[in-house]
Amino acid sequence: MEITITPIGVMRCGLRTPSDAPMYHTKSNETGVLEILSPYREAMHGIEAGQKIVVLFWLHQARRDMLQVYPRGDRSRGLRGVFGTRSPMRPNPIALSELTVLKVELDRIEVSGIDVIDGTPILDIKSASGWQTKETDK
Amino acid sequence: MEITITPIGVMRCGLRTPSDAPMYHTKSNETGVLEILSPYREAMHGIEAGQKIVVLFWLHQARRDMLQVYPRGDRSRGLRGVFGTRSPMRPNPIALSELTVLKVELDRIEVSGIDVIDGTPILDIKSASGWQTKETDK
Repeated sequence: MEITITPIGVMRCGLRTPSDAPMYHTKSNETGVLEILSPYREAMHGIEAGQKIVVLFWLHQARRDMLQVYPRGDRSRGLRGVFGTRSPMRPNPIALSELTVLKVELDRIEVSGIDVIDGTPILDIKSASGWQTKETDK
Repeated sequence: MEITITPIGVMRCGLRTPSDAPMYHTKSNETGVLEILSPYREAMHGIEAGQKIVVLFWLHQARRDMLQVYPRGDRSRGLRGVFGTRSPMRPNPIALSELTVLKVELDRIEVSGIDVIDGTPILDIKSASGWQTKETDK
């Protein structure tokens, strides 16, 4: 079974290479713009400044053939399967970022908290509320 | 640009139709099994009972042509763009679930907290720690 996905937009920011990207988006103060492709703009309706969103990215530069890694490059702890880590290398390299919306325009969502590089395809955007067990159920 | 994704496994559980599935996985006590396909089993190494994992599913029965919805079916609040909601209907219907690992075998991860139906393709599995701003950075 194969699934075909068409990106709904692209990240625009100042991070140029994976080594520029912070290891965890929780440490990132980077801002940038989610550029949404025209067929999908209606789906942005209602997104507002101040809101937290979960963005799914396709890590187009990540290796897909690595099944085990040294977490955070630390060899002392041994190899671990990528499914038990947050490594960008994995068979389907989809990244999750929780970002804060700064501003919304026709086809642009300005956000902070970026941990992916310029040009990264966007697969999906969701409201961040109500999915984690730690959240109150609004 | 088109991206091709091959599922790494499939959900096995007692939920048969989307109407069986709880609206939010935080309310789910359902248990089931993530069956991992043989080429990807090495990537499970290190996953242990008690751990929380984030699982990305492909909602194979979801409509992909809906850009706006009434959140939770409540028409009084008006239509909203799907990117500001948690609706399963969206251009790329990828679901996120935070699940608790109950048991790990060769090619099976028994989990609780399920909110997707039997047969749902699995795209990726990640450690749940360290990605949300609410988490301490371990």
